Amino acid sequence: MFKAKIDSTVLRECIESLTAIVDEGKFRLTESGLKLRAVDPANVAMVSFELQRDAFDLFQFAAEGSSSEADTEAEAESESKNELEIGMDFVKFLGILGIGGRDEVELELDEHAQKLFTRMGSLAYTLSLLDPSSLRKEPKVPELEFPVQVIIGTEVFRRTIRAAEKVGDHIVLGVDGEVFYMETEGEMDKLRLGLRKDQLILLTPGTVHSLYSLDFIAAMSKGMSHVENITLNLGKDYPLRLDFEVAEGKGKVSYLLAPRIENE
Amino acid sequence: MFKAKIDSTVLRECIESLTAIVDEGKFRLTESGLKLRAVDPANVAMVSFELQRDAFDLFQFAAEGSSSEADTEAEAESESKNELEIGMDFVKFLGILGIGGRDEVELELDEHAQKLFTRMGSLAYTLSLLDPSSLRKEPKVPELEFPVQVIIGTEVFRRTIRAAEKVGDHIVLGVDGEVFYMETEGEMDKLRLGLRKDQLILLTPGTVHSLYSLDFIAAMSKGMSHVENITLNLGKDYPLRLDFEVAEGKGKVSYLLAPRIENE
Amino acid sequence: MFKAKIDSTVLRECIESLTAIVDEGKFRLTESGLKLRAVDPANVAMVSFELQRDAFDLFQFAAEGSSSEADTEAEAESESKNELEIGMDFVKFLGILGIGGRDEVELELDEHAQKLFTRMGSLAYTLSLLDPSSLRKEPKVPELEFPVQVIIGTEVFRRTIRAAEKVGDHIVLGVDGEVFYMETEGEMDKLRLGLRKDQLILLTPGTVHSLYSLDFIAAMSKGMSHVENITLNLGKDYPLRLDFEVAEGKGKVSYLLAPRIENE
Repeated sequence: MFKAKIDSTVLRECIESLTAIVDEGKFRLTESGLKLRAVDPANVAMVSFELQRDAFDLFQFAAEGSSSEADTEAEAESESKNELEIGMDFVKFLGILGIGGRDEVELELDEHAQKLFTRMGSLAYTLSLLDPSSLRKEPKVPELEFPVQVIIGTEVFRRTIRAAEKVGDHIVLGVDGEVFYMETEGEMDKLRLGLRKDQLILLTPGTVHSLYSLDFIAAMSKGMSHVENITLNLGKDYPLRLDFEVAEGKGKVSYLLAPRIENE
Repeated sequence: MFKAKIDSTVLRECIESLTAIVDEGKFRLTESGLKLRAVDPANVAMVSFELQRDAFDLFQFAAEGSSSEADTEAEAESESKNELEIGMDFVKFLGILGIGGRDEVELELDEHAQKLFTRMGSLAYTLSLLDPSSLRKEPKVPELEFPVQVIIGTEVFRRTIRAAEKVGDHIVLGVDGEVFYMETEGEMDKLRLGLRKDQLILLTPGTVHSLYSLDFIAAMSKGMSHVENITLNLGKDYPLRLDFEVAEGKGKVSYLLAPRIENE
Repeated sequence: MFKAKIDSTVLRECIESLTAIVDEGKFRLTESGLKLRAVDPANVAMVSFELQRDAFDLFQFAAEGSSSEADTEAEAESESKNELEIGMDFVKFLGILGIGGRDEVELELDEHAQKLFTRMGSLAYTLSLLDPSSLRKEPKVPELEFPVQVIIGTEVFRRTIRAAEKVGDHIVLGVDGEVFYMETEGEMDKLRLGLRKDQLILLTPGTVHSLYSLDFIAAMSKGMSHVENITLNLGKDYPLRLDFEVAEGKGKVSYLLAPRIENE
């Protein structure tokens, strides 16, 4: 049983952060909220998403047969029963949320029919869910340690990405001493953004840089349009982990992106 | 002889209500104003349009040879002479009106050259008219009686149509007791708008519903962008008549749409 | 050596006036400012451009080897050495300026590498210049005398051009007594703008008119989007010279357009 109410802007913002990486996926629904981990079709980028139950105005959840007093093995199973999987076409769901305007969204799961009943004001939408077993398995998050962290305003980051797309296909993100930089070289021209520590919200000084595919970073930058700041976790020729909060801090999104090999 | 002045916004609104159904057609011009009745190329939708002479800031009309004292047959003929037909490419005319901005529009008919001289401020446009005999005949309006009437805000109606287009090809409009509803089913999903009597401007309680092609209703909804309310006249598996006023009540538009057969 | 700072809006406005006619070209840079003269690929339209050094917030220029005390021939050469040629892809440069927002633009020429280093706030762009010898030669400006001059608001001129494009391919610009007019005839329709002397900023009375290709005038009208007034210099079956100021009067743009032969 799952029933919930949530601000439509918050829900849109959440789903938008997912569609930056994947078109469809499966939420894991527990009594503490919603979680998702998914990898893009090319296996280059990953999104980890988490939304706490208190991001909702109403959150009622009860897994079936989730009672108690069992032996260890049964407990483990009932543990897994305390979770529901919801397979969803996020792109379609985002379109539906766009219809409803600023009304609060009411959600109600019909587990047996595999439908999500979505009410926005006078509009009701019955969304067919996707069979979770038909969707890709949840990926494992690799263990990573990032020597350097940068917190930067989303707007300047997104603007630089848009500019870089006019110049080349790849982008270097790096820290050189107390300067964070983004650099793209095309066949003829070169674009570089350099921000000193005092122009950033936070910077761990260091000397790191990695090359990434602009396509993926551009996709990511579309998933954070309502966010004020993002955290970039960087290393030397290392994956990028880009973190931000949604739902006024009651939700978290992390994008993980594999680096490209630089030809030098 | 026809000479007139009219607010450009009003005239644009009128022509826009026609282009929702037809690209071209013929106005019947009399001393009481302008009328038109036309059917879409597929014979599924009809528009009836009427604009009173007092919607114009200036309205001078005199049919040729329209004098008097005749026997009954001649009178009938002079009757028909008290009318001018103006064949027009509405899409092109709407484009021209878009050029003129907010200036008042002056119209002057050159009946012999079959031109409509259109002046908007310092801009003059000479529009070639279409030969009325080359245009389709004016359709007869079928006699219809509608058991149920609903008056609804245009904005919610148009928004629901836009939403429904994402879901399916057809839409049910119906009244169930004191609730008006619009419902679209796609292959997977279902969208339903339900409005209670107190959420509408007017509702005749009843039990009716009919299925319509969304394409045509979507086209119609583009013809009423400046209108606040529309009246839906409904029956059971029956045509829809959608009425609204233009020109601050000095003009009337009716769309008539044939129902589709439901497969049950 | 060339180093400069300039308001980004001013620089964009200047480059935009060039891209109306040509995609690329060469600036002649002297200690008094920037000049350019270029012809469109079809040899129908020409642009003459001039930007004074005081349009810049900073302007440092020194041609190499530009010293002194030479004989006449050498002087002529040093004269030509007091000038630098900068070949540029204006379309690309305009795109770059769009990236930088409203920040001031810093320019620095690397003459040997043939790069223009462009800094806008925290963004740095290194633009590869084009080899001036690979670009078309600067055209000569023909000697022309215009009997009639009209100063007109840019907005009404641009709006009429947009309207005319819906009607035909050519446009007549003319003065008839104290009226300036623009007239386009299509196969069916005719559009005419007529403005009396008191509706214009200036008009030399006369009787002239010439026919021009709308494509070129439409392109020109895109180069003056930030300009309030333009001056039209007209004659009888004669070229059009269209002048306007940029950079708050510290820059001048002239477009010259060959007339078309009227078939009468």
